[in-house]
Amino acid sequence: CYNIFVLETVCVGWFSLEFLLRFIQTQSKCTFLRTPLNIIDVVAILPYYITLIVDSLSVSDRPTGSGNNYLEKVGLVLRVLRALRIFYVMRLARHSLGLQTLGLTVRRCTREFGLLLLFLCVAMALFSPLVFLAESEMGAKQEFTSIPGSYWWAVISMTTVGYGDMVPRSIPGQVVALSSILSGILLMAFPVTSIFHTFSR
Amino acid sequence: CYNIFVLETVCVGWFSLEFLLRFIQTQSKCTFLRTPLNIIDVVAILPYYITLIVDSLSVSDRPTGSGNNYLEKVGLVLRVLRALRIFYVMRLARHSLGLQTLGLTVRRCTREFGLLLLFLCVAMALFSPLVFLAESEMGAKQEFTSIPGSYWWAVISMTTVGYGDMVPRSIPGQVVALSSILSGILLMAFPVTSIFHTFSR
Amino acid sequence: CYNIFVLETVCVGWFSLEFLLRFIQTQSKCTFLRTPLNIIDVVAILPYYITLIVDSLSVSDRPTGSGNNYLEKVGLVLRVLRALRIFYVMRLARHSLGLQTLGLTVRRCTREFGLLLLFLCVAMALFSPLVFLAESEMGAKQEFTSIPGSYWWAVISMTTVGYGDMVPRSIPGQVVALSSILSGILLMAFPVTSIFHTFSR
Amino acid sequence: CYNIFVLETVCVGWFSLEFLLRFIQTQSKCTFLRTPLNIIDVVAILPYYITLIVDSLSVSDRPTGSGNNYLEKVGLVLRVLRALRIFYVMRLARHSLGLQTLGLTVRRCTREFGLLLLFLCVAMALFSPLVFLAESEMGAKQEFTSIPGSYWWAVISMTTVGYGDMVPRSIPGQVVALSSILSGILLMAFPVTSIFHTFSR
Repeated sequence: CYNIFVLETVCVGWFSLEFLLRFIQTQSKCTFLRTPLNIIDVVAILPYYITLIVDSLSVSDRPTGSGNNYLEKVGLVLRVLRALRIFYVMRLARHSLGLQTLGLTVRRCTREFGLLLLFLCVAMALFSPLVFLAESEMGAKQEFTSIPGSYWWAVISMTTVGYGDMVPRSIPGQVVALSSILSGILLMAFPVTSIFHTFSR
Repeated sequence: CYNIFVLETVCVGWFSLEFLLRFIQTQSKCTFLRTPLNIIDVVAILPYYITLIVDSLSVSDRPTGSGNNYLEKVGLVLRVLRALRIFYVMRLARHSLGLQTLGLTVRRCTREFGLLLLFLCVAMALFSPLVFLAESEMGAKQEFTSIPGSYWWAVISMTTVGYGDMVPRSIPGQVVALSSILSGILLMAFPVTSIFHTFSR
Repeated sequence: CYNIFVLETVCVGWFSLEFLLRFIQTQSKCTFLRTPLNIIDVVAILPYYITLIVDSLSVSDRPTGSGNNYLEKVGLVLRVLRALRIFYVMRLARHSLGLQTLGLTVRRCTREFGLLLLFLCVAMALFSPLVFLAESEMGAKQEFTSIPGSYWWAVISMTTVGYGDMVPRSIPGQVVALSSILSGILLMAFPVTSIFHTFSR
Repeated sequence: CYNIFVLETVCVGWFSLEFLLRFIQTQSKCTFLRTPLNIIDVVAILPYYITLIVDSLSVSDRPTGSGNNYLEKVGLVLRVLRALRIFYVMRLARHSLGLQTLGLTVRRCTREFGLLLLFLCVAMALFSPLVFLAESEMGAKQEFTSIPGSYWWAVISMTTVGYGDMVPRSIPGQVVALSSILSGILLMAFPVTSIFHTFSR
């Protein structure tokens, strides 16, 4: 655990130095801070320093024993910040041609991504109440306890993941499931083709 | 719960007003009522009024205490009607270009959808009895209790969802499963390509 | 049950009559019997008559009470024959343009289907022993009891069905699983594209 | 078991003879040993001889009873070597046109395979800590015990396999799951298209 801390300190030190040098060299500070890749850099570097400050504060706080509740909240914030360190990975985008192509495709296909989400939401809103109605009326095992729970089932079925934690048992429920799966496969297929065409160009 | 009721009343009121104005303005009332989008409007608005009427009737009935059985059936009808309110969502189709493109593609690809369903039914009719026979003869765990139950398994396997509630355990059953999954992947692929070509145009 | 029997008798009678008339009209009896669609007809019609004969025999046998073992075997044969009646469905192929297109595509893509199966077998033969080795050495739960059992797991994973009845728990097993799933997705994709190109033409 | 041993001896004898003859005939021994197909041959043939040597050694060792620990390690090595015999299958590549086409496509698409792996790793590194955080904070059932365990969940979900051994139960976890599944489908789709174009040519 100590080795990981040293490694992280070295990495963050290097990243901060590189970021500062680039920040000093650029003419227009504003446009520099608005570039997506630079924002990713800031989001990746900042949590380390905040964690450091909060850690030192909580160490100095601890003797006073002000409150467990406050410390727990600080711990939660720390954990969220530590999870944000995954943005280091995104810094790879600067050096990889493949990830840059991906970024370009993503930016061009925003409309298709929106369409995909819209289709999915409409299909979810259509099939979730139907399967909940069919199952709550006739199903023996009550796996479908609420309509929001059915939304989860609809997503998992339409993307053909199929975890198996919620399975319709009644025949009307299974008919609804069949139609939702088929429409899911077709709906997912529509925008994927458009993205294909953009990416292959 | 009360807020949702108020929201719904306002929405339905607005929709009804809009629908009435459009109905009065159109020359030919018949073709107006036959347009798919208008039918969706009617199906989305009507349940609210029917629920209102049935609710007031059941309130006036309740003192007489005519019968629990009758009230239960009314409750079921109400729940089905409430589920129909999801057609509100379809009204979005009027304003979204993406959903209109989807609708256009669906209308043109009716033949492909039919083909997809036909292929699926044929494959289901072929593989379900075979897997049922293999499993009921040799399987240790009796998960495949009937041929209609095997239809459900065949659909879930051929669409590669794979919930895992029914899994063939005997070797002949697994060979049937392998061939049904492979044919499922290929069968699903056929009409999807045609739909792709229609959509990308 | 009695109604189904009557329906089947009428259907088989009609099919037999039609088949006999076509058989009498054709010049070359040999080529007639070699056509795939006619073979399907024979396979669909014959089971009914064999079942009828075996049933009448077993009825006449029953009083003598020769042996339970013999009757059980006859019952198994009957059930297999009854499962063969599903070939009635294939007779639809004669009248549906979609199914004929499918049949044509299947006949042209025999080489691609072979390739798909060959790829799948090679990948199964590569990954099954590896995952079995990894799991039997290090796994806590012994779900992978034998190498043939691992073949089933490999098929279910590579086709992205994922029933969840066999899941690798150790880290080496999960790495093998990851590579087998990725190669499965890519392998399945190769011949499907060729089939696409043939079908869209 | 004895029959399999005889069959293997015959196969390996034949392969060794063929390999030796080819090795003697070639001019440049170095380039011969560097060809991928010849390396596969060596990896496929060698384990048999090593197993033979180790077996005879362990037989001569056994009377001395030096130690169980040593024998166990030898047994593990033997099992790994026996698993390597699966490379026999790869020798088919020499004679099958389909497998050669596959090999050619794989060699040309190394960049696309790398991209696919890179995308997958980035997405895994993004979603695994998020789902672990969401589940460990709010989930009732603790299926997500560690971040490396979440990597396995992310892979299984993004490839739409969905075994169902780890399922997010809290609503934030399910939202993360939805976005990871969608991005997984799209990410997998990118390089597959490029491979398609290479293969169809």
